[in-house]
Amino acid sequence: MPATTKTASRYDVIGIGNAIVDVISSEDDAFVAAEGLVKGSMALIDAARAEELYERMGPGMEMSGGSAANTMAGLASLGAKVAFIGKVSEDTLGEVFRHDIQAIGVAYETPPLPEEVAPTARSLVLVTPDAQRTMNTFLGASVFLGPEDVDPQMIASARITYLEGYLFDRPEAQAAFEKAARAAHAAGREVALTLSDTFCVERHGPEFRALIDGHVDILFGNENEMQVLFGTSTLEEAFDEVRGLCEVVAITRSAKGSLVMHGPTLFEVPAQPVRHLVDTTGAGDQYAAGFLSGYLKGLHLAECGEIGSITAAEVIGHYGARPEVDLASLVAAKMS
Amino acid sequence: MPATTKTASRYDVIGIGNAIVDVISSEDDAFVAAEGLVKGSMALIDAARAEELYERMGPGMEMSGGSAANTMAGLASLGAKVAFIGKVSEDTLGEVFRHDIQAIGVAYETPPLPEEVAPTARSLVLVTPDAQRTMNTFLGASVFLGPEDVDPQMIASARITYLEGYLFDRPEAQAAFEKAARAAHAAGREVALTLSDTFCVERHGPEFRALIDGHVDILFGNENEMQVLFGTSTLEEAFDEVRGLCEVVAITRSAKGSLVMHGPTLFEVPAQPVRHLVDTTGAGDQYAAGFLSGYLKGLHLAECGEIGSITAAEVIGHYGARPEVDLASLVAAKMS
Repeated sequence: MPATTKTASRYDVIGIGNAIVDVISSEDDAFVAAEGLVKGSMALIDAARAEELYERMGPGMEMSGGSAANTMAGLASLGAKVAFIGKVSEDTLGEVFRHDIQAIGVAYETPPLPEEVAPTARSLVLVTPDAQRTMNTFLGASVFLGPEDVDPQMIASARITYLEGYLFDRPEAQAAFEKAARAAHAAGREVALTLSDTFCVERHGPEFRALIDGHVDILFGNENEMQVLFGTSTLEEAFDEVRGLCEVVAITRSAKGSLVMHGPTLFEVPAQPVRHLVDTTGAGDQYAAGFLSGYLKGLHLAECGEIGSITAAEVIGHYGARPEVDLASLVAAKMS
Repeated sequence: MPATTKTASRYDVIGIGNAIVDVISSEDDAFVAAEGLVKGSMALIDAARAEELYERMGPGMEMSGGSAANTMAGLASLGAKVAFIGKVSEDTLGEVFRHDIQAIGVAYETPPLPEEVAPTARSLVLVTPDAQRTMNTFLGASVFLGPEDVDPQMIASARITYLEGYLFDRPEAQAAFEKAARAAHAAGREVALTLSDTFCVERHGPEFRALIDGHVDILFGNENEMQVLFGTSTLEEAFDEVRGLCEVVAITRSAKGSLVMHGPTLFEVPAQPVRHLVDTTGAGDQYAAGFLSGYLKGLHLAECGEIGSITAAEVIGHYGARPEVDLASLVAAKMS
């Protein structure tokens, strides 16, 4: 449950993550296979590969993305006071990212990198007819985020600090996470973490488990990520492992909805019906946004999951990982 | 009817127009009014105004646009051999424009402007809940298109040269149009013109009428543009004026469909039903694409209009001015 601190909070949630602009393109399964990609995953690519893949992919639409940034955009649309920490460059895509996140009411003040150091991160998102997304991310300026970008006073002013697992690929970012988590807990605040990606969890299992053990109050992930994280063959076993490490765990299961764990209790939350499934990018990000918006209000955890189902259903009905409608009104209408 | 020339044609259609990246944002009517904009129109803005308006507008999605470029993208999706002539800069948005139009199979070789001269054109497109679009275009590099960018041999190799009325704001572009039209007719080819915008027609009535009189075989426009062009109070009177100047005229009428004039004959073409109207940007552009694809096959003009209704209906069902599906398959399914 939300920490009842004595000091006023300036922000409801601060997210720390990659500052990415998505380049979204419709592709068929054959294209994804020919490029040697694992459908549904996120692969890190370098500048040369990004250029090569962009050359071959279809016409794109550019939209701001980044997992934690998407969640912060969702929370802002739900009426929460939100900030984001992440690194862009002083280039056009950096301006696009900054504009988009500020335009939706998210405080974003991380100083950009000079253009000559690295370009703003982009993710080439291939959306197949089954609405699955396969992401190819060139991290660019994003990797330059470090502990110096985390202001402990700012973190202390937020009820929840939300960390994006994707950042685990860099020691500098891991250090930023630890600094943020310590600052949050020192101020009696809470820390949330999203596991982000199976391969990312596989690459950094021990570091993830250490962070969760000492520093995480609310954990988000999907079934695969949980099983890979704890090396178990069933989700139940993974829950047994995480119980005790972390108080609240919310696990998304695509069309099956989500499971919300609170200590020994497990709530099963159904998915919301989606009329026309277009692009699943951002489903987990918006689930987390919906869940946290309920959590901030002190709602029952099953209700938090329900709100997550509603906000996830909105985002998968259109291209792009951020809401197209006012989520506060949508949730109010659906929950009434 | 298509000219039956003896020489082989390398292209079905070459479009000449502004090379623009759209920045699309959902806004309410109050925002459009507060910015002093005329809903549904296109306003030219300078760099300072573009920055100011961008600052105030909501999060955007960047997608390649430009009226004639959209029509060429539609024609390519319909299986036609297509080229585009228009000016971008050597910057990120220029790369985006180039990638997107080439990715859909449109030949595009216009040399870009050096980045320091001017940035790539962008249009801030505000889409209101009624699916109307209000465009604010900073032309940037686009205005540097001139006669030197028009290769008469290339024009002579295309069955139809398609001119975008928006370019009429610049004498250099008008000169490029005249050069292209002369080259096309010298080779026994046809010339199409789209009127683009009521205000644009109002600004350049005499120049438009002179071009149509001497150089245009197929004219596209909407009801307002036609009446403004000929200074008439009814569409019937405008048709009376244009008859004799131009052989084929196709006039879109939003939900009422279109009217296709062929000499003394007028065909009324119904609109296609649209399940969920989202964004009318590109409706006229895709109507022209559909119409011309039928025209290239020598179909009856009423059928050309029907195909235009189908392709226009597709594009107004989603954000962005270019098709999201393979139009050739869509039209084949609907016309069978």
